[in-house]
Amino acid sequence: MKRYADLSPSQRTIMTPGPVEVDPRVLRAMSYPILGQFDPEFTRLMNETMEMLRLLFRTGNRWAYPVDGTSRSGIEAVLASLIEPGDRVLIPIYGRFGHLLHEIADRCGAVVRVIEKEWGTVFEPEEVIGAMKSFKPHVVAMVHGETSTGRIQPLAEIGKACRDEGVLFVVDAVATIGGVPVETDNWYIDAVIGGTQKCLSVPSGMAPVTYNERAERKVLARKRVERGLRSMAEAELSDLRPIQSNYLDLSQLQDYWSPDRLNHHTEMTSMLYALREGLRIVLEEGLDNRFARHKLHESALIAGLEAMGMTLYGDMKCKMPVVTCVTIPGNIDGESVRSMLLHRFGIEIASSFGPLKGKIWRIGTMGYSCRERNVLHLLGAFEAVLQRHRFKLSAGAALQAALDVYEGG
Amino acid sequence: MKRYADLSPSQRTIMTPGPVEVDPRVLRAMSYPILGQFDPEFTRLMNETMEMLRLLFRTGNRWAYPVDGTSRSGIEAVLASLIEPGDRVLIPIYGRFGHLLHEIADRCGAVVRVIEKEWGTVFEPEEVIGAMKSFKPHVVAMVHGETSTGRIQPLAEIGKACRDEGVLFVVDAVATIGGVPVETDNWYIDAVIGGTQKCLSVPSGMAPVTYNERAERKVLARKRVERGLRSMAEAELSDLRPIQSNYLDLSQLQDYWSPDRLNHHTEMTSMLYALREGLRIVLEEGLDNRFARHKLHESALIAGLEAMGMTLYGDMKCKMPVVTCVTIPGNIDGESVRSMLLHRFGIEIASSFGPLKGKIWRIGTMGYSCRERNVLHLLGAFEAVLQRHRFKLSAGAALQAALDVYEGG
Repeated sequence: MKRYADLSPSQRTIMTPGPVEVDPRVLRAMSYPILGQFDPEFTRLMNETMEMLRLLFRTGNRWAYPVDGTSRSGIEAVLASLIEPGDRVLIPIYGRFGHLLHEIADRCGAVVRVIEKEWGTVFEPEEVIGAMKSFKPHVVAMVHGETSTGRIQPLAEIGKACRDEGVLFVVDAVATIGGVPVETDNWYIDAVIGGTQKCLSVPSGMAPVTYNERAERKVLARKRVERGLRSMAEAELSDLRPIQSNYLDLSQLQDYWSPDRLNHHTEMTSMLYALREGLRIVLEEGLDNRFARHKLHESALIAGLEAMGMTLYGDMKCKMPVVTCVTIPGNIDGESVRSMLLHRFGIEIASSFGPLKGKIWRIGTMGYSCRERNVLHLLGAFEAVLQRHRFKLSAGAALQAALDVYEGG
Repeated sequence: MKRYADLSPSQRTIMTPGPVEVDPRVLRAMSYPILGQFDPEFTRLMNETMEMLRLLFRTGNRWAYPVDGTSRSGIEAVLASLIEPGDRVLIPIYGRFGHLLHEIADRCGAVVRVIEKEWGTVFEPEEVIGAMKSFKPHVVAMVHGETSTGRIQPLAEIGKACRDEGVLFVVDAVATIGGVPVETDNWYIDAVIGGTQKCLSVPSGMAPVTYNERAERKVLARKRVERGLRSMAEAELSDLRPIQSNYLDLSQLQDYWSPDRLNHHTEMTSMLYALREGLRIVLEEGLDNRFARHKLHESALIAGLEAMGMTLYGDMKCKMPVVTCVTIPGNIDGESVRSMLLHRFGIEIASSFGPLKGKIWRIGTMGYSCRERNVLHLLGAFEAVLQRHRFKLSAGAALQAALDVYEGG
């Protein structure tokens, strides 16, 4: 029989917009023996995770818990639970992940209206608000930080307008949560989805969500306790179409996360340990300190890239602090640069999708990957690799510029 | 701010039908630093995992990979991808998890016919085959090992009959895979779903699935590459209704697991490390040795329980080797016994669902939890706790009976 080698992954410097390096404390948390899913010790850990998620999302919502899947499982859980077939949904799109919201809403049977903005920019709030007032949707769903273009969308005014019109406002904050302010309550967001493998620096595998009572009312109206658990009386309570997914049904998930602990899935023990530890680290650092740290390393990275003669992509007024997009210079093979960075220097950066494929590199400064050592290592390596690709630059300038930022120069 | 304590879970002896104790090698695997999802080192680990899953499922199928979610995410991925709204689906039910198949198929828009068997028994193959021939379903879906009742359903004849009639045969082998033979190809099963947190002794979080070309044809006929990735030409290829889930869409998942690596989700790195290590352990032990080990410890457990005067629940002809159900004696509070086992002895056993709630205890002997030390620890503790609950028994007999089995007596 073929032998499979002992696991021994290389240590990488991961400077993509996710997944990023995992904090060693989180890695250690996953190595602890598991508890049973209904063990009181384990349900206490689940409750603590909910408490910490409320702080992360800056919300007073009762419901804040992880969906057991990668980030898009959380997006689908929220959309499939809130969207009844035939519901009108407005989706403002300014990059790839807006298209994903469209795709998922469509599969939920929504009547979708899309408004699109050129990649590299974001919407003026009035553009979204105007479309919302004319289309009168049940739901507006949009992306907070679009990693495909490195842009961040201001949300506060849109949220307020949706609340005033009685429209549910759903936000994909997968790429921003824990790295950039996400003000669930202050921005009047009804449901938010976060990601673990980006600014939280927890491995991919869970999707923290939060939603308020407005969203919960819609979810509960469609609730159906599953066959095998429900009593006859519970069988057909609702006139609305039941949620089309069983796995991603928020009404059942919240019963599981409530003191009732109504059996649904088997909670992912080791991933829950990881998320809890990741949240502890975030709260120990403090959210505002954490956001400031992300800004600092972004500044150093930008200073270095510009000193190297690189051109940043996109409208700088709406640049996402945790993703920096760099225009690939003419005559340079972007994939060859990425490959050399990975194989010689152990550094991973990203390419992009669709219209930006082959046009830009994307560099993440997220979570545990967002630190001085990594930024300096990347800039030094990037310079050498670009020189190796015959790009003309002023050698040494990038690191000096970044060091100036770190030394407060 | 509230301080959250360092993670420090108690070490439990987990003798439930899952989740069970995780092999320390698997725990260690999760503590390694992560790789990026498209890092060639990582995609090689993904490919190795597919190879090992084929051996586990005993199949020559091309497709064998984990769905990123707990076990029921795999069940829903298979059913949602294979069932078009209006498709006829036959579901033979002999316990709770058959009802789950019904629930999920229903939410996929299936026209479901159910046949039910009293809990504690299974179907004669002819009963299922007869119903299949009269209902003429597109799909027959059933559970292999029903942990709610501790029964195992013979599948070979049913599979052959389905193949002869051109019906897709889907099997939930969540609780049996890795502990009891599951012969995907020999039993003519078109799609199988396994679980990680039971006989594989990997934490909950992934659902390995396999399916053959017959199933793949149905999946591909409904394929739709998602918005943001697809070209215009790919936009509307199919007349069939697209798969209603984006997250659990096998047509997109198999593109992600193919050499194309078409971006879908971000693979759960640490869980993939865990699954790969769990599979290595299974294959190093050897499937047949592993099945024999499960039978041995089952024998010792049964000998001990019977010597203690316990009555086993259900038809012994179809007893699941990895779950042993015990009738709770009259006058004994089953939950009080479970609580004392947990809090004094650190041992977890399970209760059951629905009509069996409060009637039986369920004891798992699965994967890494299935070992002599655990069986003996449980029997000794169980005797003491039952005595403490004033149950009359012959003290010491249980351990002597189990030791007889282990010593080949």
